[in-house]
Amino acid sequence: MSKANKTAIIPTRDADYPEWYQQVIKASDLAENSDVRGCMVIKPWGYALWENIQRNLDIMFKETGHKNAYFPLFIPKSYFEKEAEHVAGFAKECAVVTHSRLEDDGKGGLKVAGELTEPLIVRPTSETIIGSSFAKWVQSYRDLPLLINQWANIVRWEMRTRLFLRTAEFLWQEGHTVHETYEDAMLETKKMLGVYATFAREYLALPVVEGEKTAAERFPGAINTYCIEAMMQDKKALQSGTSHFLGQNFAKASDIKFQNKEGAIEYAWTTSWGVSTRLIGAVIMAHSDDNGLVIPPKIAPEHIVFIPIYKNDEERDAVLSFTKDLVSEIKKLRFNDEYIRVELDDRDINNGEKNWQWIKKGVPVRVEIGPKDLQNHSVFVGRRDKEPKDRLSMLRSDFVDNISTILNEIQTNIYTKALSFMKDNTVKIDTKDEFYAYFTAKNIEKPEIHGGFAMSHWCENEECEAKIKEDLKVTIRCIPLESTFEDGKCVLCGNKSKQRVLFAKSY
Amino acid sequence: MSKANKTAIIPTRDADYPEWYQQVIKASDLAENSDVRGCMVIKPWGYALWENIQRNLDIMFKETGHKNAYFPLFIPKSYFEKEAEHVAGFAKECAVVTHSRLEDDGKGGLKVAGELTEPLIVRPTSETIIGSSFAKWVQSYRDLPLLINQWANIVRWEMRTRLFLRTAEFLWQEGHTVHETYEDAMLETKKMLGVYATFAREYLALPVVEGEKTAAERFPGAINTYCIEAMMQDKKALQSGTSHFLGQNFAKASDIKFQNKEGAIEYAWTTSWGVSTRLIGAVIMAHSDDNGLVIPPKIAPEHIVFIPIYKNDEERDAVLSFTKDLVSEIKKLRFNDEYIRVELDDRDINNGEKNWQWIKKGVPVRVEIGPKDLQNHSVFVGRRDKEPKDRLSMLRSDFVDNISTILNEIQTNIYTKALSFMKDNTVKIDTKDEFYAYFTAKNIEKPEIHGGFAMSHWCENEECEAKIKEDLKVTIRCIPLESTFEDGKCVLCGNKSKQRVLFAKSY
Repeated sequence: MSKANKTAIIPTRDADYPEWYQQVIKASDLAENSDVRGCMVIKPWGYALWENIQRNLDIMFKETGHKNAYFPLFIPKSYFEKEAEHVAGFAKECAVVTHSRLEDDGKGGLKVAGELTEPLIVRPTSETIIGSSFAKWVQSYRDLPLLINQWANIVRWEMRTRLFLRTAEFLWQEGHTVHETYEDAMLETKKMLGVYATFAREYLALPVVEGEKTAAERFPGAINTYCIEAMMQDKKALQSGTSHFLGQNFAKASDIKFQNKEGAIEYAWTTSWGVSTRLIGAVIMAHSDDNGLVIPPKIAPEHIVFIPIYKNDEERDAVLSFTKDLVSEIKKLRFNDEYIRVELDDRDINNGEKNWQWIKKGVPVRVEIGPKDLQNHSVFVGRRDKEPKDRLSMLRSDFVDNISTILNEIQTNIYTKALSFMKDNTVKIDTKDEFYAYFTAKNIEKPEIHGGFAMSHWCENEECEAKIKEDLKVTIRCIPLESTFEDGKCVLCGNKSKQRVLFAKSY
Repeated sequence: MSKANKTAIIPTRDADYPEWYQQVIKASDLAENSDVRGCMVIKPWGYALWENIQRNLDIMFKETGHKNAYFPLFIPKSYFEKEAEHVAGFAKECAVVTHSRLEDDGKGGLKVAGELTEPLIVRPTSETIIGSSFAKWVQSYRDLPLLINQWANIVRWEMRTRLFLRTAEFLWQEGHTVHETYEDAMLETKKMLGVYATFAREYLALPVVEGEKTAAERFPGAINTYCIEAMMQDKKALQSGTSHFLGQNFAKASDIKFQNKEGAIEYAWTTSWGVSTRLIGAVIMAHSDDNGLVIPPKIAPEHIVFIPIYKNDEERDAVLSFTKDLVSEIKKLRFNDEYIRVELDDRDINNGEKNWQWIKKGVPVRVEIGPKDLQNHSVFVGRRDKEPKDRLSMLRSDFVDNISTILNEIQTNIYTKALSFMKDNTVKIDTKDEFYAYFTAKNIEKPEIHGGFAMSHWCENEECEAKIKEDLKVTIRCIPLESTFEDGKCVLCGNKSKQRVLFAKSY
């Protein structure tokens, strides 16, 4: 696998991007499909990624005043029906609990029994069940704002699933907040979008476009949906987080009312926002290469793996002793306010194979230590942001002094590379012909690699949006928050337009 | 409420212990019942307790070599049926998903639709679903031991529920491990019991008896079940954690086999172990008093609340400035390796009421700061392990220097008090008459307060165990690991017995 023309992952990104994605997950041991339709098993390396995402996002939520709580997994059907658009959006894909026990079926097996008087929906999102609690918690303007977050599992009975990107069960967080005014709720909606964008850039090394969804792409029941959109290496967009301004829709459905400062009773204004294990899919598809996973150091399960190299017991003792000393020194250092996470891999397998296993798993820094290093007080360092063969001998002391800087460099390099890729594949397009050519020109050998992000004018007519979707499977990913107003003509119909929007194919 | 003869919680423990428990939860704002049968809402103060339990236990799991992973919420009925005793133990109380969507019922409502070919059980425990993954992961002795933990929600359709102690849905962790030999698996089973006992004592300030369950009280499908049992203030036992030696039962059911060092294929040996949000119930019932919740500092959501006291804007500015300085100094200090968690409560409500709110919520240290304190460089300190009126003026500098020590003292005092209570209410009983009197003698005015732990001889005959349970609702909580072998006679039948066991009423 270490030969110049071979890659650790087969097929390569260019050859078959979707299959490459599956093979990266397999080679890095992140997750696997379970025997339960559409449900995944998140393996230790993948779950550690999620724990690091979770821990750091949680700090940001708490710094912005939110507290965690936990609400029931089940939603009574009647609650679910309260908001018409909401239920319409989720009814087609929800797991329904109808019975409460199993009974002997008289044939040596078990049959379902104990039918419930009201079916329970396994939460596909929790607005309605959390709303019923909030209605009790909120009485006065003094109770507001109410800023709650929940870490939970979610079930949506998707028909076509793909590990991390779309699974029947997934893990996520859902923020739910209640406010006195339109302005306060809108401020919260945008603040949390900003938290997501910052987290994506600074932790996931993921450049994102912040924007607002069109009506057609909104969360069912929301007034406005805001999102962050990232570009994957096949130039498709991946929606990586959403923040919803719910207006008074859900407050009315759940009866969340409060006495305002003037003593009058009014409906509150609510928001909700979430990111999920899909972020792991984003990290894989944005950064990884034909040798496997590439993980930004800030969320890496391990920052460094140490690989001792020796030929006999005598060498082993000396090398291991040197390595353990170094490990315990490194473990006391911090990177991004956390202790540096290291693994010492002394498994009895071929060193080349071992090295490649860690490359495929995406560990940011690999350190090989052999007998010569003991003499030279050196270590042999490989970085996941460089080519596998570009390894470097460093003085042990330099390595210790610079490891934080090295990890920071890797984090920055991964981000910069992804940012360049997004910029290089984002174009302004002003004519229909060019637009259609952009999204249909296919390299026969690389059917997945085409197009990118098109910044084009749109007349705000849903028919144009629908036509483009039908013709090209291209959607308006968002109306970017940053885009300046600029008069133009709709790329499809030529009617007047106020600003460019982001068109792309997407996951 | 601050009057000498009044208590913040009504009824008191003596008057009505079960109702006192509900009222402490309400007054401290830990949790509430939801509208979904048997499911609770864990409110922010209660969830923060769980987060602190979770974070610290997780560190102990990782230090003992375990890694976290995540497995499906749903278990196909056929998997569930694989282990006969196991399914018998859980079939009567499980939520069953039978449908995958809702459809218009033609009457303006929705009906269930999309019937599944195989019903799915919402996990009541995950041995069988995790076993199906382990069967794939384990091939050779080189893959062992496999040491996995999962943090998850669990559903058991309990008919009689009580917040934290017994709910239809609860949060827990479940460890699942696979080993080469009987000895390795047994060692792991007991090691994790030890981790639970240490955590209970050092973090929850909860004295526990470690022991083995009798056959009648075993986990369905286990060979041996070990447990930690704690005494609540009504002298009943609460099973607070269990560790199961599963032998090869589940390995055979899930086909977990490996090639041993000699090249032969054999079934592996597995264990499982878990603690849940029930631990919060244990903390409430073991430590709290008639003024509300008492929380051991190591798991407290906030260690200290600061209450500024002032009469006008001028005083307010000065007091707040002094308090904020102190807060930022304290937040940089650590207690038990974590930054000290503080809240500054400047809400516009009566100070006495505010103080009592924090007493009821169990925050370990309350600090009031008024204009006089500014002159004297002092603070006015109340501790939750002392009487509400026993407050003390301290120099600000002494407070800063000693806060870690104070928190440690509170942690120790809470433990010592609970330990004395357990010792004072544990007796050796050697005659049937005394035994029956111990568990039936009731104080008419305090019907819940009677008995305690009885250390008595048992002949190992299940009939004696069943008779005592039937007569007295008293069960063998465990055969204590520490108890020395001692010849004696069964407290019921008088037959020969090898050692004393722990009898008690229980939750």
